[in-house]
Parts: sequence; structure tokens; C-alpha cells
Amino acid sequence: MSVQHATAERTETNGSRPSTTNGAAAPSVGGAAAPFVRRHIGTDDDARTTMLAALGLDGIEDLLSRTLPEQIRLTQPLALPAPLSEHQARTALAELAGRNRPCTAMIGLGYHGTLTPAVIRRNVLEDPSWYTAYTPYQPEISQGRLEALLNFQTVVSDLTGLPIAGASLLDESTAVAEAMALARRSVKKGAVFLLDADTLPQTVAVVRTRARALGIDVVVADGDLVTALQTHEAFGVLVQTPGASGALRPVAELAAIAEKAHDNGALVVAACDLLALTITADVAGWGADIAVGSSQRLGVPLFYGGPHAGFMAVREGLQRSLPGRLVGVSVDADGTPAYRLALQTREQHIRREKATSNICTAQVLLAVVAAMYAVYHGPDGLRRIANGLHHSTRRVAAALQAARVEVLHTSFFDTLEIRVPHRGRAVVAAARRAGLHIRPVDADHVGVSIGEDATEHDLQALCEAFGATLGPDGTGDLAGQVREREFLTHPVFTTHHSETQMLRYLRSLSDRDFALDRGMIPLGSCTMKLNATTEMEPVSLPGFADLHPFAPREDAGGYHDLVATLEEWLAEVTGYARVSIQPNAGSQGEFAGLLAIRAYHLSRGDDGRVVCLIPSSAHGTNAASAAMAGMRVVVVRATEDGAVDMDDLHAKIETHRDQLAAIMVTYPSTHGVFEETITDLCAAVHEAGGQVYVDGANLNALLGLAKPGEFGADVSHLNLHKTFCIPHGGGGPGVGPVAVGAHLAPFLPNHPMLDEAGPATGVGPVSGAPYGSAGILPISWAYIAMMGADGLRRATEQAVLSANYVARRLAEHYPVLYAGRGGLVAHECILDLRPLTKASGVSVDDVAKRLVDYGFHAPTMSFPVAGTLMVEPTESEDLAEIDRFVEAMISIRAEIAKVESGEWGEDNPLANAPHTLARVTADEWTHPYSRTVAGYPAGRRQGPVAGGRGDKYWPAVARIDGAYGDRNLVCSCPPPEAFEE
Amino acid sequence: MSVQHATAERTETNGSRPSTTNGAAAPSVGGAAAPFVRRHIGTDDDARTTMLAALGLDGIEDLLSRTLPEQIRLTQPLALPAPLSEHQARTALAELAGRNRPCTAMIGLGYHGTLTPAVIRRNVLEDPSWYTAYTPYQPEISQGRLEALLNFQTVVSDLTGLPIAGASLLDESTAVAEAMALARRSVKKGAVFLLDADTLPQTVAVVRTRARALGIDVVVADGDLVTALQTHEAFGVLVQTPGASGALRPVAELAAIAEKAHDNGALVVAACDLLALTITADVAGWGADIAVGSSQRLGVPLFYGGPHAGFMAVREGLQRSLPGRLVGVSVDADGTPAYRLALQTREQHIRREKATSNICTAQVLLAVVAAMYAVYHGPDGLRRIANGLHHSTRRVAAALQAARVEVLHTSFFDTLEIRVPHRGRAVVAAARRAGLHIRPVDADHVGVSIGEDATEHDLQALCEAFGATLGPDGTGDLAGQVREREFLTHPVFTTHHSETQMLRYLRSLSDRDFALDRGMIPLGSCTMKLNATTEMEPVSLPGFADLHPFAPREDAGGYHDLVATLEEWLAEVTGYARVSIQPNAGSQGEFAGLLAIRAYHLSRGDDGRVVCLIPSSAHGTNAASAAMAGMRVVVVRATEDGAVDMDDLHAKIETHRDQLAAIMVTYPSTHGVFEETITDLCAAVHEAGGQVYVDGANLNALLGLAKPGEFGADVSHLNLHKTFCIPHGGGGPGVGPVAVGAHLAPFLPNHPMLDEAGPATGVGPVSGAPYGSAGILPISWAYIAMMGADGLRRATEQAVLSANYVARRLAEHYPVLYAGRGGLVAHECILDLRPLTKASGVSVDDVAKRLVDYGFHAPTMSFPVAGTLMVEPTESEDLAEIDRFVEAMISIRAEIAKVESGEWGEDNPLANAPHTLARVTADEWTHPYSRTVAGYPAGRRQGPVAGGRGDKYWPAVARIDGAYGDRNLVCSCPPPEAFEE
Repeated sequence: MSVQHATAERTETNGSRPSTTNGAAAPSVGGAAAPFVRRHIGTDDDARTTMLAALGLDGIEDLLSRTLPEQIRLTQPLALPAPLSEHQARTALAELAGRNRPCTAMIGLGYHGTLTPAVIRRNVLEDPSWYTAYTPYQPEISQGRLEALLNFQTVVSDLTGLPIAGASLLDESTAVAEAMALARRSVKKGAVFLLDADTLPQTVAVVRTRARALGIDVVVADGDLVTALQTHEAFGVLVQTPGASGALRPVAELAAIAEKAHDNGALVVAACDLLALTITADVAGWGADIAVGSSQRLGVPLFYGGPHAGFMAVREGLQRSLPGRLVGVSVDADGTPAYRLALQTREQHIRREKATSNICTAQVLLAVVAAMYAVYHGPDGLRRIANGLHHSTRRVAAALQAARVEVLHTSFFDTLEIRVPHRGRAVVAAARRAGLHIRPVDADHVGVSIGEDATEHDLQALCEAFGATLGPDGTGDLAGQVREREFLTHPVFTTHHSETQMLRYLRSLSDRDFALDRGMIPLGSCTMKLNATTEMEPVSLPGFADLHPFAPREDAGGYHDLVATLEEWLAEVTGYARVSIQPNAGSQGEFAGLLAIRAYHLSRGDDGRVVCLIPSSAHGTNAASAAMAGMRVVVVRATEDGAVDMDDLHAKIETHRDQLAAIMVTYPSTHGVFEETITDLCAAVHEAGGQVYVDGANLNALLGLAKPGEFGADVSHLNLHKTFCIPHGGGGPGVGPVAVGAHLAPFLPNHPMLDEAGPATGVGPVSGAPYGSAGILPISWAYIAMMGADGLRRATEQAVLSANYVARRLAEHYPVLYAGRGGLVAHECILDLRPLTKASGVSVDDVAKRLVDYGFHAPTMSFPVAGTLMVEPTESEDLAEIDRFVEAMISIRAEIAKVESGEWGEDNPLANAPHTLARVTADEWTHPYSRTVAGYPAGRRQGPVAGGRGDKYWPAVARIDGAYGDRNLVCSCPPPEAFEE
Repeated sequence: MSVQHATAERTETNGSRPSTTNGAAAPSVGGAAAPFVRRHIGTDDDARTTMLAALGLDGIEDLLSRTLPEQIRLTQPLALPAPLSEHQARTALAELAGRNRPCTAMIGLGYHGTLTPAVIRRNVLEDPSWYTAYTPYQPEISQGRLEALLNFQTVVSDLTGLPIAGASLLDESTAVAEAMALARRSVKKGAVFLLDADTLPQTVAVVRTRARALGIDVVVADGDLVTALQTHEAFGVLVQTPGASGALRPVAELAAIAEKAHDNGALVVAACDLLALTITADVAGWGADIAVGSSQRLGVPLFYGGPHAGFMAVREGLQRSLPGRLVGVSVDADGTPAYRLALQTREQHIRREKATSNICTAQVLLAVVAAMYAVYHGPDGLRRIANGLHHSTRRVAAALQAARVEVLHTSFFDTLEIRVPHRGRAVVAAARRAGLHIRPVDADHVGVSIGEDATEHDLQALCEAFGATLGPDGTGDLAGQVREREFLTHPVFTTHHSETQMLRYLRSLSDRDFALDRGMIPLGSCTMKLNATTEMEPVSLPGFADLHPFAPREDAGGYHDLVATLEEWLAEVTGYARVSIQPNAGSQGEFAGLLAIRAYHLSRGDDGRVVCLIPSSAHGTNAASAAMAGMRVVVVRATEDGAVDMDDLHAKIETHRDQLAAIMVTYPSTHGVFEETITDLCAAVHEAGGQVYVDGANLNALLGLAKPGEFGADVSHLNLHKTFCIPHGGGGPGVGPVAVGAHLAPFLPNHPMLDEAGPATGVGPVSGAPYGSAGILPISWAYIAMMGADGLRRATEQAVLSANYVARRLAEHYPVLYAGRGGLVAHECILDLRPLTKASGVSVDDVAKRLVDYGFHAPTMSFPVAGTLMVEPTESEDLAEIDRFVEAMISIRAEIAKVESGEWGEDNPLANAPHTLARVTADEWTHPYSRTVAGYPAGRRQGPVAGGRGDKYWPAVARIDGAYGDRNLVCSCPPPEAFEE
């Protein structure tokens, strides 16, 4: 019937190759395992038939013609290569990895050789229970990763000496930029942000990109910082310690800088090295107000530049200005200590353009790795590693000195700058021949940095590249710095030092969390779909994992091919001319896109265009990014049916015609609807000289069906961690490529360390590394390669079908807030709980927490409309799981009815949700409903696996009191006594 | 104090290199992460001090001098290389893997290219929750892997058409040998086991090895089997279908063979191919009584020969003769269907020399992979793969025919034998140059077999090697065979076809199980120690995973080096002259060792030596192996203190002096004691002309302290899955190398396909592959390489110390049954529960199940003495976990006291253990003790992780009624309705 029909049509449209009814390539060789598209999409033909029937539709084509505006629909299939099988993709990626040549990485500059403990690699980085988790916005079902993040914060706080550390930033360079913005907000006088002359070069560039948009004057000190602070009226100063050159200052010198800065009312930012801090003075001790840096060298692979967890810690008084997420300790409804995100009112999803930052995605998975590295080694182990590195560096320094090669500094931790007159290139080349990547500085200087992976043989080879001979003795010192403040005194850092202990600790944490390996996560706007193992496995290949971002081009051929292909594919599927994958989060992609728009206007002499129109329903990040890009946000109203109010739009355009820089819209809208007016909207903005930014958050409803670059948009960012299968990692890493029309291509990001990373006319880098989070790009590459044009379109069709199926089945129980033409939604739907809340007092929170009892992660709560739930099933969920969700929601509706009718009073399972095992197994039971109703509302055998045997997920804690935690802010590990019975 | 003292001494004794107090090599380079020995051993110096103090000992040396007989102690450290760091081991193994060159494997002969679905590789093969599990003897905490094994049995049973399939055998060749033994036991007349002329060559050899010892006459039919059945009086006949040559017989021909055999009273064994069976006739249909084969091609990597799961299925009436483990369905105490091992009374640990087989270890992990491959592909997917292979093979046949190259058979599934007069070697070489391994048959013939991994390009290259050109058309057929019987109709095989579904299914299963990732498994005699990730990771490297066992020597250089090094190291640590790693289980090692003894006697004309003395406390496998090797078992009594009764020994030696072949003893004894008389025992046996076999089961108490080969033994087998860190995999794979003195070396196993696998004078192969389970040897290699001499000895010391600590702490609560000199035990201790049982009625079963409520896997039950528990903590457990166990046992003792005193009646938590969540959360609670006492007897925050937050393990089912299941034997998946509430 209809499915067959639709398929037949599709095959014709596509026409490129034979297609079975399942959209599979015909088995041509050997065996013929199911094509990847059948593994990725959760529904089979039967399920699709059932869903279409429930909607009264004739087929997929019928669905599409009723939802998607005709004028934007593609008429041609995507021009992508024929899909690879999983086996072929595995082989192709191994081949690409093989064309990278990781050497022992001695380049330094914020990226260091490190050894990921195998137990952490396998049981965190490669474990779906960690990497398929979502951001811990539902803290009751996220206690494991929240504890891991609290460990991370404790590591950062203990080592820097500053009391409040966040749960990770995107990288060191953007962390410095965030610190600059924080200082700017905190200090009213001064226009200059002063940079240490020994700052990492990529940090200088990233800071300049950010500062330019904000009108901040960045000055790189010409030598001594105290003198520079006398010359410039600075609101903040960055001290890099150790410096990019490796030089380490005495504490007295650092204290003098801080004192001078504080005298001037400026804040002091220290960019520091966590491993060095285990044996050198903590930065709080000499007066730093803010510490930033990268935790990469705590066991996180180099990944050709990322993803790595940047960090920031601040002194007391600055915590409410901290960008990014912050984990804190609170209590649950039973008084048990419980973790959750603290002070969320700082964040962009609440504060919009007034937020402390546009940061949204963090680097959770990598922060977990770094934290666990510290847990596994403990304070003594970290100190031993740091001393080992320092000792090795001293031996190299002594060897060079003995060979009459000049080492520029006598005080250093692990990095040397070396004078080799006229021999710079020759020495770098000699080292490379010996399997070492060292840093070319200039014709006469090179740098070397010793990492944990360097072997005795490497050190010997290094010395030989300089014509020196390694000996046992060393020279050089830590500038008299001594670590005095104790660190990692919490028992967690001294308990899990055997592999067995570590394994059990990791398992006990991940067991507390609900991730995609347990069941559906129907989060609207977050696209929690399959992260296939074939996509994930290549990330661990040494060719991808162990390459330094500044390795010579000729040793990174695999990465360059991968990036070029991926950028090309992304341009094809979005309809843009050019893509940059540099932005390492969606927020950075937005920022880069807006910078491109701004630069475009400026390039045309249009310097007054600073107004950015943003519909009221937009993600908060849009507004925050616009503010960061130096634009002024003007809100466009929504109509009652949730669409952009075209009258208001026209009015706002008129009001701001001459200042109009851009409009930022999401398509389909954040209301989950394909607005018919999108092409008119684009035309109106263009007519007024503005540019159209289409947020790619909802691209999962468009891929293969329509291209923003073809229906009128000038720029988009994509979320590879949504539509393109990079897992959410518990809250990161993400990748947020920016895609632009040809006229904006000259204004894409570029990078000072790699010319081909962007146009010479570009806006500068927005990430520390040329290709941002390069290490996880194989995931999206594999996804596109294995799905092909047909597969990608089929996925989109299923995503839209599944969302409509949910909306239809739930419509009689909960009003679906917005719908487009024909009452249909796009790839997500908003369930309006406000009337129910009004009638019964049962809140959207109650429903979300009650869903946990049914074994689900809640949908998105109160976004984009307060008092609603937004559901996005994605194409990867199967019909049985979708039905299980629908039935849970229907059952909850019946429970709400009992509250409405008064059958249940205040002590009801909705108000008390979620129910922990501690409660349901308690000796006393005082509730008017039964234990079964509390814990097994869908029956005793409830669970996501058909024929489940009671494999129910239980939350580790009961409902958490967020306000308590904000009033009593605790952001590092609480003592074990806190958890005693 | 004492620890320091002991360490100082140790350093002197060792003398080879500087040693810190932690036994670590001094950090020489870069960073200096903790050496592996510190990750492997669970205790640190403080914990050791505590333990020694509890024992009132002065140090490790004091412990050793009081336990180990002086005369057997080593005076020199083991001669092993300096230990590698984890990073170095990883590099070294990657280098070894790189020296293997897997080509597309077209050799066939029972080993086929296959594609392991990535989701199964990552979430089973590489997941500690699966691979660190133990054999499911405690079924209540093993429901996940038992379900997976039941799926395996269902696959085998459905495809072969025979109703009862076991839960895996060691490989196809030994499965045929087991089938021969089964037939021998079942059929009284006839002396011949008749083999199909088209039998796999390695199977012929393995069967001959086995038959020789049992006095069975093996005849390979000279052509037609019906004729051969007329000529020979056979008790059984093996039909290989498809044959080694690829030839497939029509059903009528197979039926004629079966009819003839049955007429003669013989049993028919079919060696078959599970994938072929999806599109050819099931073997039950034409009359096979027994089906055997390998499930390797269902997604299990080639692994250079193993481990793979062999299978056997039998017709109704033969189930009580089935060798190996069998999973069946029973019910638990609440009437819920529950899985457990069925008909255990067949097995060697019960029946000893009268057992159906000496098989003990199975291939659980690989059987799980194969089962999940079938679950993931489903019946349609398997059929599609089989049809794809057959189609590809037909295309190759057509191409060859078109090029006038003769294909020998017109009926085949996926394998061709091809005539290439005088060009055999040239064609093989040409194929190899094109990246293909094909089978050399003789000067004029080659064979090719198409696997699931073969690409279109491979098929083209293959044809080109013959001078042919691949086209789209095919020729050849399935001999008219048609698959009629439906298969895999159970919903489990049609439900989990998307990757998300599969991931959740795998997680839901592993969540039911208790493995080392959750807590201690203190199983006496099983040595459940750390299986480190660095040891495990290399197993997945393509260089190790994807090589065919009969690949040419020059493409297997890495494996040959690894095997040679490992055999050399194992010889060094055991004090023997030569080791063969071919036996793929401990039982096979025993068999090989006994064969060597027998061959040795025969070589000296000593053909009457057939008596094997075995102490009453021995593992049942010893007796079963002796029987299999054609020996007569004579039991030697134990004294009251558990030692071998030397008087009885002397008496038995006198009685059997002329027939004395050997004595098999375990050292330290299965009673967990270092018997002082071991050297006297060896001398007495030698004096009478016998050989001494020391079972290596307890080598974890000897390594680095004493060598069996030096204190008087002639032969041992080792269990690499105990002492040498190969994980138990839920009941396999294991590796059981046999180690012998120089005089026995000529009688080690060898192999027809690889000369260097053993001596030309050897006893023949005992496993299908030349190096047995080669694919997991990197694990033991890595362990020895990373521990070094010092580390191995320290591990042994800690294992002995931990066992004595447990014994001492529990002694006042439970009598420790046996102890050696000074009241000390070796590496395990037996707790005698018999007096308590007598006084209270609380059984050893009750205690074992109650331990589950405390979050433990039970110790070994009723072995070697009924009514006792044998505890082996191993060196990998930390003091906190050991103390948690001790405290659980003490708490249980207090619970028993309440039963003794009458405070608790029959309805007590011991009798009702284990308590499931279903019970503890039930709405009604009728027991006289509380829910907390039931489910959280060690407190609400009980768990293996310090500071645990109630991460308690809950069993999936209550106590299982084993007898019910044996009375109502169900050995394939029960319908889902069985599990309804």
C-alpha cells in the first residue's frame, strides 16, 4: 500500500541505484548484512505502516506534502556518494587514520602527550552508558556524571587554589576569552585587556576575535607586565604560567603583577597548567582572581586539537559571573545530598542576551576523563608524573647545555625554548625523522615540550636532533616555586587506585544514570538519536587520537581529507557554498556566523548594521551569541499559533531598516512547525539589507527534504551532536560548524597556525584548534557516508512521521500546542500542560519526574513555552519504545485526573516523583498509594526491552531542591560523612 | 617495619634492578605513571601492613617461611625481562599485531570471514560486564548470560532441527570427538568410527588423537559412505555437510547414509555449517542423531583459530549423554521462569571418571557473540547473508568455468575446489599478492571459500588469480536442498534489529548479572582476578582478530613470535622444559599431559602402565581426563587434615607398581594447603616408575615462589584464565597450556596443518587449531610482560596473604577446615559450615544465596568438601572489599545464630535468600523480618564502592528450583507469555 507506493516514487526520484523496499542497496558481494540505514532507523516497514495508518495518511509522500511548504522542498536528491556498509566505513576510516602520522608530540602550546589509562578509555570514552547520556538537566537521573563533574571541579579548584570551578569550558583559548568577558562585566573602568607576551599564539588570536566584536582593546605586553599595567588602563590582565615558551616566573614576580593589577582595579587571569600546579605554587596564592586552562593533559587524547575540556575557576565573589555550567551539591526531598547544576539563572537559556556567556554545550565526556585520570593517579601519582616530566626536561636541558646549545630559560616545568641559529627548520626536520614533533618557532629557535608519553628513547632521539647526548643529570629549576597548598585530599582521590577499584567506581557511577543505552530520551530540540558504534570506534584509532593539532601538514593528510570531505558534504546537504567545522560547539558556530554577517556588512562599508532580530521563541543562545558578536537584539513577537508574527516582523524591519544586520530564526521553528512564511521572511529581511541566519538546531527535520541555503538563508550553524550523530557525552563535546553562502565565505573563521583552515580574509579563530574538535569528526563522516542521500532523507521522513504519531496519539490527552498546515507538526511536538496544571496543580516538573518512574528521561521542559513539554522521538526509536512512552503519558494523564478529582490529595505519586528504591523498599510506607504504583506504574515488568524482566531504571535520589543548593553553594566534593545514613 | 624489611630483602634477592618500596621500576622517562603491578594488586603498603598485623606476622617473608615448604622455594628470581609499562605493552602488542597480515580469508575448512556487528563487539566482546563474569553456577545472579546462552542453544537447535543443543563446546574438531565418545557410550556394538572422506583434515587428526587413547578404530571412508558402512562395523558415522571440499550432497544421499547407519545400529553425526543451514535442509530431517560444528562464522572473529564456540545438538533420548553445559528453564521460588544449568549430574565435577566428558570450560563469550549475531540479523537477515554468499560463489564458479578452469563440484554452498594442473602454488601465491588467502590443496588443486567480509573487489581479484573475469551470472546449485523447517521464530530474533534495540537488549541482559565490575567473586580454585584493559584491548586489533588459522606462516609472524615468547615464559615460570599452548581449555591440557605420559611409557615399551592415582580431593576433571586418556583411576585417600594420606599412597603404589602410569595432584592442594609431603610424594611415584602430574589450577599460589617442574613434577597444565588473567567470559574461553619436562617434550601435541606447532613425534592435535585459542594469548603475554618477575612474585605473595587474612578474620566465626604448618593456608581457605548446618538447618546454599543480598558472588560451594565454602580473594581485591566480604560473613553468622536460637523460624532471610526487588518492593510484606534486613542487610548504602550510594546489586530472580527444571527439561527460549505477570 502507501509505503510501497512512496518507496517506488522515491526510487524513481533518486534514480541512482536499485533500491529495495527498505531502501537498501542490493547485496552485491559476499554476504549481505542489513545496510546501515536499517540499523539507524528504529522502525521497519510494518511499523511505518502502523504509524501512517494512525495518522490517516496515504504514505510518506502524503505526510510530506501536508507538512513541508512546497516551495522549499528539494526536487533533486542530495548529491552524495553511494552509501558505504558498516564494514566499508570502518575500512575507509582506518585508511584515513593511517594517513595521519602521529609522532611523539613535543610541540606543547597547550597540547601535550598524555597516557589515557586503558580502564578509563574503555569504560568512559568507549562506553555508551557515558557517551550517550544527555546534559544533566534532570539531575535525579544524572547523579553519576554529576559526581564525575564535581570531581573535575574539585581537581581544578584544588590545584588552582580558587574556590569555585565550573564543569568545563570548550578549550583553553575560549576560556581566556570568557575570562576577558567576565572581567569586562566585573570591572567598570579601563578599555584594555592585557595579554602576557608569553601567551599561547592561538589564545591571542581567539581573544582578538572576541574582543573585536565587543570593542575591547587587546594589548599584548611588550615584555614586563608590571610596566605594561602602568602604561595601559586595563580591566584585566592575562598571565600565562608557564608561558608558551616554557618560562616559569618566580612567585614574587607573579605576585607583583597581581598587586599592580589589583591596585589598578583590574582582574588577574592566570592561564595555567594543571599538571605543573601539582609541583608549583597555586595561582590563588599569588593573587590570581580567575584561573583558566585546558585539562587535556590529564589523560585526554590529543585528537588533533579537540575535544578537550577547558576549565575556569574563580575567587569568591565572582561565581555568579562564571560562564558555563557549574555543578553544585544540594539535597533531595528525603534530605539526601544530591548533585545538580547550580546557579542556572546565569545561563543563556534563562538570561538570553544578558547571560554571562553564550556557552551552552560543555566538554563533559572529556572533563570526566580528566577527573578520572586524577582519581586514578591521586595526588601522589600526579606529583610523580609532574616530577618525572620536569626531571626529563632538566635532563634534556643539561644535555643541550653540554653540547653548547643555548636553552633560553633556566626556570621551566616541561618546556624549553632553544636557540639554534639558522638551524630551526633543520632541527625540526631531524626530530621529525626520529619520530618527534617539536615546535618550530622561527629560523633560529625551536621549542620542545616533554609529555607523559615520551620514552627514554624519545628523549635520546630528541637530544640527537640537536647534536646532543642525553645523560642522567639535569639542569634548570621551577623558579623557586613550591607547592604548599594541599590538593585532592578528598578520599575519592586516594581510594580508586587499583584497576579493579577504578572499574567498579566507573560502573557504580554510570549505573546511576539514564542514557540512550537504557531507553528513549525524547528531548525536543536535542535530537537524541543513535550514536552507532561504527561511527564511534574510529575515534579511538591512534591515527585520529594521538595527533597534535600543530603537527606538520604532511603528517595530517588523513585529517585534512576527512575535514575537506565532511565540509563538502555538509555544504551539499545544507545548500550553502562553504562550511567551516572549526566552531567546537553550536554557540561558537552561531558566534562565527554572526561575525561573518557583521564582517560582510563592514566590508561593504555598512558599519551601522548592528540590529539582530530574534523571534521570542528562539533558543536563548541566539540572543547571547548576538550580544557577543556586538549586535543589539530586537525581539520579534510570535502569533498565537506560535509562528513568527509577520506583521511585527515587517514593523521591526521598518523601525530598524538602516541598522538591520540580520534575523536569526530556527527552521522548522522551535515550536516544532514548518512555518509557511519562511520564504517571505527571508525575502523581507533581504529586501531591507539584512542577512538571514537559520539556526540548524532542527535540521533533523530538513535533511534531504529542504536546504536552508536554497530557501533563502545566508548562514546556518549545524549541531553535529544532534543531526549528525556525535553523542551528547553527558553534555558535550559538540561540534557546531558554520555554513555560509558564497558572499559570506570570505568571512569564515581562520587560524594563525594553519593557513588552509580558513580564508585569509576571515574573522580570526573562534576555537583554539584549527579544526576545533577534530577528533570526533569521524563520527559525522561515518554517518553521512553510511546513510547516503537516500538514507538521510529516509531518516528525516521517519523523524517527522514519529513526531506526528506521538502528537496524534497524545492529542486527546494533552493539547498539542502548535501545529502547521493540516494539524501536523515537524519533528517534534509541544504538549501543553498549562490547563492541566491550572486545574490540578500538577506541574510540568511533576510530570517530568513522574516519567522517571515509568523509566523515561523527560522531554524538554518549559522550552520554548513555560509549562509545556516538547517531545522529539527521532528516527532511531522503534515503535514499541514510542508506544511505551505514549502509554506512560496517557497513564500519567489518568493519574492527573485522580488529583483533579480529589481522589488523590497532596501526597500523590506525581508530587512525590521520582520514587527511589530507598523509598519503595523502606520498612515504613505511609503514602495513600501503593509501592507498586510508586515504583512500577507501568507494571512490574516495565522496561525498554521487549519481554523485559523488570529491568527498570531507578533514580539514585529523589526530587532535588535546586534553590537550597543555590542558597548554600557547594561546588566541590562533599566529605563522605555527608552521605552517611 | 616488617613490610619495609621484606621489601628490602626482596630487592636484594632480586637484585636485577632498582626497586621502590612499591616494587616499581624507577621512573626513567617522561611522566612516571604507577607501574602496572600497582594497578593489578588491589592492596597498597598500608593495607599489607594491616593484614600482616592481623596475622601477627613480621612481614611477607615471615608469611612465606611459615607456609611454603622450604625445600620447594625458589632461590632465584624468575628469569623474565624487565616489566613493561602499560603504554609499552600496548605499543609492543600493536607491533606484534602489525606483523600479522590478515588477508581476506578464503581458506575455509571451518573458519570463515565474518563481520562482527560493531554494537556486539563493543558491548559484549569489549565489555567487562560480559567478559569478567564467571560460569553461571549461581544462576540467580547470571540470568543475563543464561538468556544469551539459551538464545545460542535455540539457534543451534532451530537450524539443525535437533531438539536439544548444549551451551557450546570448544571447537568443531573436539565437538566431533565428543560426538564420537557419545556414540561410543550409546552404541554397544561396533569398534569403528567412520569418517566422511570430505571431513575437515584437522578434525580427522583430532578424532584420531582421541580415538587412539580410547581404543576406537577410526576409518576414513574411501568414497561413498553407504558402501563404507557395509564394509565396517561402525558404532557411528560422521557426515561433513558441506564437505571440506565444499561439495554438498542431495538430501536423498544423506538420508540413505543415515538409513544405512541406523540399520546397523550406528549413530549419525552431522558436522554442519549454521549459515548454510539457513538455506539448506536441516540435518534432523534426513536422519542425523547428532549435529556438531562451529558457530564462528556467526560474527566471531577468526582469531587465528580460536576461541570460537563449537556446538552440539542431539535428538531426544541422547540429552543425558550430552557433553558440556546445557542451559535450561526452571522456575524460581516465586514461580517466575528462570534459567539455570540443567542436568549437571552428567558433568565431570559430579561424575568424575564416569562423566560423559572431561569438558568443563565452555566458550560462553563467543557463544554469546554468535547468539547475538543471530538476534541482530534475525532469520531473514541470516538467510540474506547465506544467499549472498552462495550467489557470490556461483558467480566465481561461472567465471572460472568461462575461463575453462575446472570446478570440481556443481553443488556447493560457499566453497569450491578447483583444478589448476601444476599451478596450485602459483595460484595461491597470485591470490596472496592480491590480498586473498586461499587454500592450497595439492600441486593441482586449490580451494576457495567466500566469507561475509569478501568485497566485490575481492571476488574480482580472486577470479583474476585464476586468469578469469568475474561476471554477474552464476552457476552451481545447492544439490536440490531446500530449507523447509522454520527457524528463529521466537520473537527475540525479530525484535532487536536496530542498533538502539540491540544496545538496550545487551545492556538489559548484562545488568542482570554480577561480574567483577560490580564486586568481588571470591571463588576458591577459580582465581577471579583483574582482567586488565591493557591486556584485553589488543584482542580487538585486526592483526590478531582477523587472521585465518591456516594462513601462510609468513603472514603470521606476529602470532608466531607471541606464541614462542609466551611458551618460553610459561616454561620459565613453571620450571618445565617445554610448553604447548594448543589445548584450548584446562581439560584439554590435562588430556594432552596424560597423553604425553602414556606415550612416554609406550615409547619405552612400558605398555602396561595405565593406572592413574588421584587423591580423593581432586577436581572431577582430573578423573574424567584420565579416563579419556585411557587410564584407570585409582583413588588415594586423604588424611583427616586434608592432606594426601601418604600411607595410602604408598600402599596404592605397591598394589599398582607395574601398572602405575602417573599420579595427578593439585599443588597447593585443592584443600588450599601447601602440603609438606609434596617432594616425598613425587619421589615415591618416580621410584615406582610413574610420572607426576601437578594440576596447575592453584598456580596462583606458586608463581615466583616455587616451580612444579623443579620440585618433582613431570607435567602440568596451566589455566591461563585463572593465573594469567584471561577473563572467565561467563564460562569461557579458557586456555590450558600443557607444560612438560624434557623427557616428555617429544610427546606434546602437534598439528597436521602446521609443522612447527609441535614435535613430529607428538601425540597429534587436541584442538582444531594449531595454537588453540590463539586470539586471547595476547592477554597472558601482556600480563607477564607488565608484571615481570618481581611483580608476579608479589602478586602471589599478596594472594597468599589475603587468603590468610580472610581465614584468620573468619576463623572464630566459621572453622577453617584445613591449614598447613603454623595454621596457615595457601591462596584460598575452606570454611566448614557442616557443624552450623547440623545445629541450625542453615545450609551452605542458604549462605551462598544470602551473600547475594549482601552484594557478593558466593565462594565455591561444596568443593572439594560437601557442606563447605572455599574462598579465594586473589591479589586483585583491595582490603576494603575483602573486609566488606568478611563483615558480610560475620553478619551472616549472626543471622544463623538467630535461627539456631529459634529467634527466627523457617521464614528467615537465609532460607528466603536471595531477595529480589520484586519481593522487597512488594505491596504486601509478610515476613517476620523487615524489608531492610531482606534487601540491605549490610545497611542502606551497601555496595562495593567506598562511599557507595546504595549501588546495590539485585538478583533478577529468587532462588531457583533446579530439580524442577531437570524434570521438565526446556532448553530453548520459552515463549514471552511465560514471563507475563
